[in-house]
Amino acid sequence: MRSTLSCEIDLDAPGKRHGFLRLPHSTHESAYGFIPVPIAVIANGTGPTVLLVAGNHGDEYEGQIALGRLIREVEPAQVQGRLIILPALNFPAARAGRRTSPIDGGNLNRLFPGDPDGGVTEQIAYHVTEALLPLCSSVIDLHSGGSSLMYTPSALIRRGDDAALFARGVAALKAFGAPHSYIVIPGTNGGRTLSEICFRRGILHLGTELGGGGHATPEAIRVAERGIAGTLRHLEAADIAWDADMRKRSTRILDVGGADYYAYAPDPGVFEPLAELGAEVRAGQPAGLIHHTETPWRAPSRIAFERDGVVLVKRWPGMTARGDCLFHLGTDTGL
Amino acid sequence: MRSTLSCEIDLDAPGKRHGFLRLPHSTHESAYGFIPVPIAVIANGTGPTVLLVAGNHGDEYEGQIALGRLIREVEPAQVQGRLIILPALNFPAARAGRRTSPIDGGNLNRLFPGDPDGGVTEQIAYHVTEALLPLCSSVIDLHSGGSSLMYTPSALIRRGDDAALFARGVAALKAFGAPHSYIVIPGTNGGRTLSEICFRRGILHLGTELGGGGHATPEAIRVAERGIAGTLRHLEAADIAWDADMRKRSTRILDVGGADYYAYAPDPGVFEPLAELGAEVRAGQPAGLIHHTETPWRAPSRIAFERDGVVLVKRWPGMTARGDCLFHLGTDTGL
Amino acid sequence: MRSTLSCEIDLDAPGKRHGFLRLPHSTHESAYGFIPVPIAVIANGTGPTVLLVAGNHGDEYEGQIALGRLIREVEPAQVQGRLIILPALNFPAARAGRRTSPIDGGNLNRLFPGDPDGGVTEQIAYHVTEALLPLCSSVIDLHSGGSSLMYTPSALIRRGDDAALFARGVAALKAFGAPHSYIVIPGTNGGRTLSEICFRRGILHLGTELGGGGHATPEAIRVAERGIAGTLRHLEAADIAWDADMRKRSTRILDVGGADYYAYAPDPGVFEPLAELGAEVRAGQPAGLIHHTETPWRAPSRIAFERDGVVLVKRWPGMTARGDCLFHLGTDTGL
Amino acid sequence: MRSTLSCEIDLDAPGKRHGFLRLPHSTHESAYGFIPVPIAVIANGTGPTVLLVAGNHGDEYEGQIALGRLIREVEPAQVQGRLIILPALNFPAARAGRRTSPIDGGNLNRLFPGDPDGGVTEQIAYHVTEALLPLCSSVIDLHSGGSSLMYTPSALIRRGDDAALFARGVAALKAFGAPHSYIVIPGTNGGRTLSEICFRRGILHLGTELGGGGHATPEAIRVAERGIAGTLRHLEAADIAWDADMRKRSTRILDVGGADYYAYAPDPGVFEPLAELGAEVRAGQPAGLIHHTETPWRAPSRIAFERDGVVLVKRWPGMTARGDCLFHLGTDTGL
Amino acid sequence: MRSTLSCEIDLDAPGKRHGFLRLPHSTHESAYGFIPVPIAVIANGTGPTVLLVAGNHGDEYEGQIALGRLIREVEPAQVQGRLIILPALNFPAARAGRRTSPIDGGNLNRLFPGDPDGGVTEQIAYHVTEALLPLCSSVIDLHSGGSSLMYTPSALIRRGDDAALFARGVAALKAFGAPHSYIVIPGTNGGRTLSEICFRRGILHLGTELGGGGHATPEAIRVAERGIAGTLRHLEAADIAWDADMRKRSTRILDVGGADYYAYAPDPGVFEPLAELGAEVRAGQPAGLIHHTETPWRAPSRIAFERDGVVLVKRWPGMTARGDCLFHLGTDTGL
Amino acid sequence: MRSTLSCEIDLDAPGKRHGFLRLPHSTHESAYGFIPVPIAVIANGTGPTVLLVAGNHGDEYEGQIALGRLIREVEPAQVQGRLIILPALNFPAARAGRRTSPIDGGNLNRLFPGDPDGGVTEQIAYHVTEALLPLCSSVIDLHSGGSSLMYTPSALIRRGDDAALFARGVAALKAFGAPHSYIVIPGTNGGRTLSEICFRRGILHLGTELGGGGHATPEAIRVAERGIAGTLRHLEAADIAWDADMRKRSTRILDVGGADYYAYAPDPGVFEPLAELGAEVRAGQPAGLIHHTETPWRAPSRIAFERDGVVLVKRWPGMTARGDCLFHLGTDTGL
Repeated sequence: MRSTLSCEIDLDAPGKRHGFLRLPHSTHESAYGFIPVPIAVIANGTGPTVLLVAGNHGDEYEGQIALGRLIREVEPAQVQGRLIILPALNFPAARAGRRTSPIDGGNLNRLFPGDPDGGVTEQIAYHVTEALLPLCSSVIDLHSGGSSLMYTPSALIRRGDDAALFARGVAALKAFGAPHSYIVIPGTNGGRTLSEICFRRGILHLGTELGGGGHATPEAIRVAERGIAGTLRHLEAADIAWDADMRKRSTRILDVGGADYYAYAPDPGVFEPLAELGAEVRAGQPAGLIHHTETPWRAPSRIAFERDGVVLVKRWPGMTARGDCLFHLGTDTGL
Repeated sequence: MRSTLSCEIDLDAPGKRHGFLRLPHSTHESAYGFIPVPIAVIANGTGPTVLLVAGNHGDEYEGQIALGRLIREVEPAQVQGRLIILPALNFPAARAGRRTSPIDGGNLNRLFPGDPDGGVTEQIAYHVTEALLPLCSSVIDLHSGGSSLMYTPSALIRRGDDAALFARGVAALKAFGAPHSYIVIPGTNGGRTLSEICFRRGILHLGTELGGGGHATPEAIRVAERGIAGTLRHLEAADIAWDADMRKRSTRILDVGGADYYAYAPDPGVFEPLAELGAEVRAGQPAGLIHHTETPWRAPSRIAFERDGVVLVKRWPGMTARGDCLFHLGTDTGL
Repeated sequence: MRSTLSCEIDLDAPGKRHGFLRLPHSTHESAYGFIPVPIAVIANGTGPTVLLVAGNHGDEYEGQIALGRLIREVEPAQVQGRLIILPALNFPAARAGRRTSPIDGGNLNRLFPGDPDGGVTEQIAYHVTEALLPLCSSVIDLHSGGSSLMYTPSALIRRGDDAALFARGVAALKAFGAPHSYIVIPGTNGGRTLSEICFRRGILHLGTELGGGGHATPEAIRVAERGIAGTLRHLEAADIAWDADMRKRSTRILDVGGADYYAYAPDPGVFEPLAELGAEVRAGQPAGLIHHTETPWRAPSRIAFERDGVVLVKRWPGMTARGDCLFHLGTDTGL
Repeated sequence: MRSTLSCEIDLDAPGKRHGFLRLPHSTHESAYGFIPVPIAVIANGTGPTVLLVAGNHGDEYEGQIALGRLIREVEPAQVQGRLIILPALNFPAARAGRRTSPIDGGNLNRLFPGDPDGGVTEQIAYHVTEALLPLCSSVIDLHSGGSSLMYTPSALIRRGDDAALFARGVAALKAFGAPHSYIVIPGTNGGRTLSEICFRRGILHLGTELGGGGHATPEAIRVAERGIAGTLRHLEAADIAWDADMRKRSTRILDVGGADYYAYAPDPGVFEPLAELGAEVRAGQPAGLIHHTETPWRAPSRIAFERDGVVLVKRWPGMTARGDCLFHLGTDTGL
Repeated sequence: MRSTLSCEIDLDAPGKRHGFLRLPHSTHESAYGFIPVPIAVIANGTGPTVLLVAGNHGDEYEGQIALGRLIREVEPAQVQGRLIILPALNFPAARAGRRTSPIDGGNLNRLFPGDPDGGVTEQIAYHVTEALLPLCSSVIDLHSGGSSLMYTPSALIRRGDDAALFARGVAALKAFGAPHSYIVIPGTNGGRTLSEICFRRGILHLGTELGGGGHATPEAIRVAERGIAGTLRHLEAADIAWDADMRKRSTRILDVGGADYYAYAPDPGVFEPLAELGAEVRAGQPAGLIHHTETPWRAPSRIAFERDGVVLVKRWPGMTARGDCLFHLGTDTGL
Repeated sequence: MRSTLSCEIDLDAPGKRHGFLRLPHSTHESAYGFIPVPIAVIANGTGPTVLLVAGNHGDEYEGQIALGRLIREVEPAQVQGRLIILPALNFPAARAGRRTSPIDGGNLNRLFPGDPDGGVTEQIAYHVTEALLPLCSSVIDLHSGGSSLMYTPSALIRRGDDAALFARGVAALKAFGAPHSYIVIPGTNGGRTLSEICFRRGILHLGTELGGGGHATPEAIRVAERGIAGTLRHLEAADIAWDADMRKRSTRILDVGGADYYAYAPDPGVFEPLAELGAEVRAGQPAGLIHHTETPWRAPSRIAFERDGVVLVKRWPGMTARGDCLFHLGTDTGL
């Protein structure tokens, strides 16, 4: 393990501490500076270590807000074991409110397991993989649709051959209790996500897609807070009352499969969606229009769904390029 | 009148035609080129001339979509008089999906009455003011919240001393039939808007704020389409069936006054709104939080409403600077 | 006259001198610096003052090269009167090899008569208009097609009501002796060119369009050198042997009229020209194709000439936007 | 083979189909989008598979235009075997009209054999190398001088130890029938070109340099079309009549050797070429001048050819940096 | 007076208050936001109103630091009259640490008296000119050399025909007590500085040049603090003890005249200064070298002083363009 | 060894020669160009080969100036052995006056041993490592604080287990004779510096930190010149009289250890240093303030030194980010 990052705080002692992971970054403006990635730990007694991550993409705010509240409000006495909290993991991206790093363009969740000789974003990935994951049995990785997508609030896990790990995942989805949950096939978003790395190491990885559009709604933040509380109680890692009003939630668990679950823009233009989040749609049903606003007398391009399903996500920005994802669907699992 | 723009189509003859306003633009990439601003006309018999504008800001899509449909679907026989339609008025901004022009940074709706010797955006404003407004008795100017704001679908007019013009405006608000309508005080957004120019010339100006967040929802597009049909019928300019299902709408008409109707960010950070669009709020009620995600252990900044009112708009992007508008309110007029 | 520029050299004394027009420019990188616009003077005895300009657009190189040779090779004894030489007039643009200024985006030949309170480019225009034009009876203003256009080597004047000035112009075209010459209608390229300012003041303005494509060919440079020598001899301002081999040239003089002399791109894409420079074309003849290289299976857009004429210019870059000028034509004048 | 790109169309079935290679690209603007690289296949019966590529560099238009015509006009009945056609291979570069990718700066023809874990450009290279080359016996790779160079229309192959492959290359040069052909030494442009990869695998690679200057001339496009038809007939892969008028062409085959075949700019400035494309030049003959347009009274820098030869290419842009290639030469092979 | 800026705080009541000048700025990121220019007032009893300004250029830090200390530490009881304090006047520039505004490129001190219809920077200038200057009898305007220059700590006034105003200026220089003081000729830096506007209105304007290089030294900050205290006591506006240790300072008062007081770079390259700040130099003495680091074997360009004098400023950055100011001198006045 | 760079000059023959390392770089602007990295050699008889490097970071000018003087002034007769001189090693950075390369963002001194398949900066590093270091027994690598730091003029070596190499280093520090010298622990600035590569190969590496702030002072240039002369005489490689006036210098040799030797900015803002270069400071002593100039009424953040020591460096720019290095210290070694 030869991470370039050093941690200002002691992760091993009991109590609550916060500070920065220091990532050395030598630039024209600062030859010997570091990038300050915020980190906190809340530890007490024996129990599991859970890593809670937000800001994996910098424009996904719900998790960043919820983990900030966790750092400020939860005390060691509520914890059994250890919570390691990284609320703005790809810090340069989070500071800029961008999906990807303004320093090296890195999309952190496409760069695991990382590389200590790579760019800044790969160095962050490497530190998580080699310095933090070995401490953990579970990871809660809080995403949302970011600037370009809007999700119905969801939690997700990865399907795989490890039946015990999969069962732990399904139980975590139920404990998180988002309105929808879904299960993705291996290799979704390529093999270099945090989720894939956890899977290979037998660590439980619970993801979320909480909302999006570059905006944070109170509803999605509440889903995050309740879900964190519910999952940490389920994992016997902490007892937090944020979900006091709704402990008996249920979640609808869906599958997301291959290419026919997705709809893409066939032309550039302005997107008008024709289906709502959460709606049940049928194969062939109109999904959206792409309007040609430079030549508005030209008929818009029409997109239809390729299969039946439940709408989990829609594209958010009106301005759209050929190849942009407009929707993806889920189908009931019976779980 | 010495506009630099020339119009490819005849605006005077009966029938339906489309083409471009040609704005000469001499650049490194094209020494003798023009910027093609799309324009259409639908004319038949005698009656009022109505100017319909969208894309005054390039990232406000609802009106661009609705006016494209108007061009494609309405035939001269449905018109009594003339519709002049500019669905992407600040064309460089509309092509880029930006509020302002990528060529000269111009915010078109802050540059009226324009200047033929000014930048590209001022040249567009000048052409509208001097070549098109003299032809018109009414203007429908379709805005939304754009990338940075989200409105409850609304139409708006300007308060003023001309009682007859104000009465025409209130009648137009009712004909448009948006869920909310509001009336702004003179000078809102400065004195260089299209609205102010119309007011000074005694031309009816009906504005809208249809949605926003850089996204086009089907609901807001429908509000635009029904409102256009209702207003054109009210003006006895066209008979379009788009509002067949809901001709008996009512609208709640509100006032928007001075600084206490607004809430602003006191610090930079990530915005969590605490009030819903359309909600009734009270002075002192929490409006939102600004989270310090670079140092998440620091307590968020808190913003309260300064007066009672109805929430007409909220800021959309999570990432927020000091001085950004977070909300504005309306108060009932009794109209 | 309150020009911001000061001239390092004495323009009034006999002899040959060179230096810079100093344009004060206060920037982050240099609070008290100046922009050095090169200038030279060659004066001897009595006779006319001729202003020779190149680099009005920074990516038009033939004139810049020819005027550099003039400065290095011509001695006062060859001059009767005075040559004031500005071989890189919009210096920031010339240094960058761009049509327009990288400092303020200014297209110098759209900003005459200039403004001492305006941007850097307007300050240059003002100095020419108010400090240099009053000294001159004739201006030779060496342009070419720049980066975006390719001309058959041509000289040009402006048509107008001043018959004596027009006759001086026609004589100058013949003295310059480019393969083609042409005469433009008033207001071509708007009213803010150097040509228009000269016309209003009764100063002879001889323009050129020598080649282009961002490239300098030996042939076009030779046309410039021979034309300068021929014109200065005709004006009785200097005797330079550069045209010794071809003093008996003839030129074909053409008119360039209104919109039907031009062809424009109806769509964005990659341009394939279908007519040659100098060719005689007929109305309706194919002019070019716009290829849709993102969807190459789509048929290309076709452009035809709108009238008969001689091809004077074609667009150079393959990559083309809607509204870019592809060709313009000339028609014989009988002069 | 673990390419990140998926192909929308079936490359194996007979017939003609077109669509996109989908390259997943997760950005701030589109989290789940893909880059659409256009691809077509025309297959019929048994015979060789030929890969035809253009847009390897995005500002080389002749091949992009010619392969578009191939897709639109050639029918399966004309084919014996299979043509796989990639007319805009480095699609982000082709869309921008740039040599290199605006996404990652990648020069595709310096990045073979590619890397599925690398940037977008390396992922494209990898897909060609591992998914498409194994299907092919020959590759026609259509280049031109792009924005910075202008070639006399030429085809080229690489010299090497594999005598049979070299003989196939010489035969292909003759079948292509460009006015000039030339043979480069191994390692020209480094070891990471498509040509080098083909050579190592024993696949025939026929390159072209068709023109350039960022411009497409009808002549160079015709050379491409005739050459494609002639080469595909020679390879017994297709029978296309595009070369009906000139099947009995001859080509002059030249060698391009080491450093003395090239001329470079010794200083920055504006380039005036002193030799023509296709000219026979002698060692010591003036090649060009570099003019110092910021201080035009300074004598230009002079460049001479270092050896005898035929001029195959010249630099196109006037604006030139120290180290830019101004010319390269060829010498007769006797082939 | 139609300033676009509004002031959050009451400037008229006694006491100490701080807040922002709100400059409305409608952007893609914030349609209804404002730019927050910090302002404070400390008022007590009757007496003069003094305007204290820093951040006129955003990369001049000494004054920004000193005025922040003034706001935090001085209480109304120490004031007789009113201090209006603008420590970061060109706020967008100050936030960026740039001489000029990143929004519109504006150099605030070249844009007085401003324009309410102009860019953001001109709007700030207009507010100072029309809303604040009418309240004031004196202005202290704290500059330094910024990023590109380094000064010996100095105060300065403008020479002029108004003998009484000039005498007030000389007295203020002595009260400020910088190591050097100097007097500039009218029109230095053009006619659009804050200094020129004050002069025309008969308002005392005391400028400073405190250090520079983009760096704040403790020494230069101390000069600012002592000078502010001394000047405010001299003006009978406030009694601040910051200069307790050195009330009996003297200052050497110099003249800065025309072009021969300055030295400029004759070529681009890397600057090596050969004279020290504060040194007495002679005409012809070497001032510096410009090194040609791209071709280091070429002899450096040499610059000599054109006249005798005291070195008041030197250029700071090594990297230098032709026309950059390297030094300016002062000569004793005998005042 | 497969470096992409070729050397124009013969490094093996006796005498003095200069030219360029040619680094092929294929861009949109120049498809076949090279980047010209200046190089010189001065060789005579037998003796050690010393590599002298400056411009490893492009904004560190003292060494660039001193090595230019070495090339111009030293003759072969003064040399015993060979001097290979690279005065602008990261040439793209040096041409731009930037720490890092504007082409690929590369920080050369974090990219050793380089990679011939990597970016331009890695290719330079590879050439030094594999083509030049094998020729050398010693390397003099001239750095300074660059744009962001200001050093007291210093030379430095690396501590390590190789006692003989360390002793050679200490002797070289004494021969260089800077006012301060210091010794860093292994791994300072990571393992990819030129210093680390030399250490691993048993080559003496003498570094310097001569000044900084993006400025070149005569004093720091003199320290470089004297140090080069003294070190080359000590190494018995050359006899240069530049240090004739001060051959009996002494240097104070300090250690620089781990994190407590450094002070960092805890917040963003404007930096006011409170300690001088070369001063002796104590643990807990105030080091500096970070001023909040956007809200100047807020108290500045305070930074204290964590240990006793001598101040070797301070941050230069006022504008500062959280995590920027403000100071580092040294402690006496007794050497």
